Amino acid sequence: MIAELVFVGTELLLGEILNSNAQYLGRQMAMLGVDVYHQVVVGDNAARLRAVFEQALGRADLVIACGGLGPTDDDITREVAAEVAGRPLELDEGLVAELEAWFAGRGRKMTANNRRQCMVPRGATVLPNDRGTAPGLIIPADGGKTLILLPGPPGEMRPMFASHVVPYLTARNGGRPLRLVTRTLRFVGIGESALADGLKDLLENQTDPTIAPYAKTGEVHLRLATRAADEAEGRARIAPVEAEIRARFGRFLYGVDEESLAEAVGRLLAERGLTLSTAESCTGGLVARYITDVPGSSRYFGMGFVTYANEAKVRFLGVPEELLAAQGAVSEPVARAMAEGALQRSGADVAVAITGIAGPDGGTPVKPVGTVWFALAARGFQGDGSGEVPLPAGVWAETARLHGDRDGVRERAATHALALVRRYLLGYLG
Amino acid sequence: MIAELVFVGTELLLGEILNSNAQYLGRQMAMLGVDVYHQVVVGDNAARLRAVFEQALGRADLVIACGGLGPTDDDITREVAAEVAGRPLELDEGLVAELEAWFAGRGRKMTANNRRQCMVPRGATVLPNDRGTAPGLIIPADGGKTLILLPGPPGEMRPMFASHVVPYLTARNGGRPLRLVTRTLRFVGIGESALADGLKDLLENQTDPTIAPYAKTGEVHLRLATRAADEAEGRARIAPVEAEIRARFGRFLYGVDEESLAEAVGRLLAERGLTLSTAESCTGGLVARYITDVPGSSRYFGMGFVTYANEAKVRFLGVPEELLAAQGAVSEPVARAMAEGALQRSGADVAVAITGIAGPDGGTPVKPVGTVWFALAARGFQGDGSGEVPLPAGVWAETARLHGDRDGVRERAATHALALVRRYLLGYLG
Repeated sequence: MIAELVFVGTELLLGEILNSNAQYLGRQMAMLGVDVYHQVVVGDNAARLRAVFEQALGRADLVIACGGLGPTDDDITREVAAEVAGRPLELDEGLVAELEAWFAGRGRKMTANNRRQCMVPRGATVLPNDRGTAPGLIIPADGGKTLILLPGPPGEMRPMFASHVVPYLTARNGGRPLRLVTRTLRFVGIGESALADGLKDLLENQTDPTIAPYAKTGEVHLRLATRAADEAEGRARIAPVEAEIRARFGRFLYGVDEESLAEAVGRLLAERGLTLSTAESCTGGLVARYITDVPGSSRYFGMGFVTYANEAKVRFLGVPEELLAAQGAVSEPVARAMAEGALQRSGADVAVAITGIAGPDGGTPVKPVGTVWFALAARGFQGDGSGEVPLPAGVWAETARLHGDRDGVRERAATHALALVRRYLLGYLG
Repeated sequence: MIAELVFVGTELLLGEILNSNAQYLGRQMAMLGVDVYHQVVVGDNAARLRAVFEQALGRADLVIACGGLGPTDDDITREVAAEVAGRPLELDEGLVAELEAWFAGRGRKMTANNRRQCMVPRGATVLPNDRGTAPGLIIPADGGKTLILLPGPPGEMRPMFASHVVPYLTARNGGRPLRLVTRTLRFVGIGESALADGLKDLLENQTDPTIAPYAKTGEVHLRLATRAADEAEGRARIAPVEAEIRARFGRFLYGVDEESLAEAVGRLLAERGLTLSTAESCTGGLVARYITDVPGSSRYFGMGFVTYANEAKVRFLGVPEELLAAQGAVSEPVARAMAEGALQRSGADVAVAITGIAGPDGGTPVKPVGTVWFALAARGFQGDGSGEVPLPAGVWAETARLHGDRDGVRERAATHALALVRRYLLGYLG
């Protein structure tokens, strides 16, 4: 089965909004094993949309269109699709009742405009919209082909696709072994080329699963993918390749699939019953923000310091003024003093400190923009009898020269700091 | 002039990357006054790319293609475009020398693959790439039509477009009055529908400039746009409409065009010579992060507290334990005590505190997820003789019920906190 994706909206052509639906649907179709050869974006213009639909139905079995199902005059997707499929629009009284109830439930009255959204091409299947007023439609067309219309807002389109289009496509494809099963291995502390070098034999001889590395800001992801009849078969094919990769680079592998580095670090802290504090200068709260992005992070994170000014480092972390004067704020001794101060004053078990030059100004020949010092201070951990490695007390420091603009340096520094905490918790800091 | 945008890459069809180039180029073309009726995404397949190019040249004067100019075998855009334009590829020795120098400057050796990137269709113009190895190309085609090829990585494409394609298109369009001049007015503290209601007459009778409202997380943007011969003419047409909008809603208008709320607040602080501190609970460092996203923020921001746990609120901000026990952490008295504590302990002139329930857990019937208390404490400001309004000393508190998931609540809370600081600095807090 070949599908074509059509996105309707002048605002997309003008670049007023980012077409995130294209990525979502592209990924979904790949996971379902449906080939997509073209995506087309077209404006709110009936003649051009008609031509796009006709061409798409000519070269694909299935056309999925997003957008243009709203109540206003420039929403024309429903009318044009009905015309192309040769099916007259009929008012669906059941839909009218549902939509009236939807508005009543929100204390609003349905307008006459919204009745347009209750027009259904004869023989089409209506897809309910739990989040908005525009129902989706599955419209049969000539030659066994199909048009599927979905609303444009991602918050409405995605749940509708997952609840109604995925089951439809799965049923339509019968028992064909076309599901794409993927597993993303997430690495930190190693570069893309070093990882690729160490996996050269696997990358060169890959057939099934395929192995694709992607560089992210401060991280590298490795995507393993295979097509299989079901999840279990795919997993079984991926497992031995993953085991081999773990044997070589498990030390740098912090999580799989959607797990973020902050989640992985939080999991390690929670498993050991330890708490973390932060002392941030150049990252300005970014590390605390990543940690508290995770629901439930209050179990292991109680307090963070954003000590942007030198005076704040002195007053709140007890960094000696002489040290700042003699070494500068971006230096190993200051990073160590920040981490020790945060550990003592917060009462946490582990504290991580970041001090660096994010730019665009403030760099010098000796300490150019991107120079960052990190330190970690810890009280030590004897283990709680459940098999974790005991962890030493101490203070560790390291530096990195990070690239990128101000945002890039700050994000890489935050990632590096979280990776340092991870290494400590796994017993890699000597 | 009509243009069509073509994006080449199987990774786009598979949804492995987000097509941010489509938004960038769409916006650029709109600003240049060039109409775009279609965007097409196609994979790394020569036959399909050829068909897409032929169709695009049939219905547009100018085709801009992004991607597929790299050194590997699946990079086919150059070859297919040359074929469609009927111009043989010839090795450009000057380019070879430049590319060899580029590699040498990075301590690397050019591979044979990279020589493919030095092949130029006869009669084409080469666009230098300062950030990578793939040069761009402007290729004349039959009937006065043109193919422009640009590299796919946004970091290479955008500077090349700005430096080389914009001047080319401007020259090609001669003196035609087609430049789109826009001005975005950014509001906070007012909803989209309230703003639209208050501007109903302007919105209904808009012709030139056009006025389009956009809701952002916690903000509303109003985009004024007109086509003009030059910037000055456009500005002159926009100015009276902007003045009318400012007369009605200037109180909520914090900035124009690209200025962020954090930048606007920072500008107000710097103008008055005041400093700010933050005491964050549910936002977990997000407000500090937004403030320090701005280069030069160390002039007015020295210190922030992330007091996620109750114990941290007691220890670092001096919030009385009894208050937390009696009122709960998400309450007006605790927000006030946090702001006062941050003011005193940081030594800043103004402190803002945020305490709320970001979810997904922790909500109750009385305090559902999204309930947030804000407080601002200030030492007062007599003015420095340069005409600013004097500001009172005091503590102000307010609450909001914010919607969205955990990320949405946190972002809206951070925006609300910055808006509160803005209102104080402008003398709106009584």
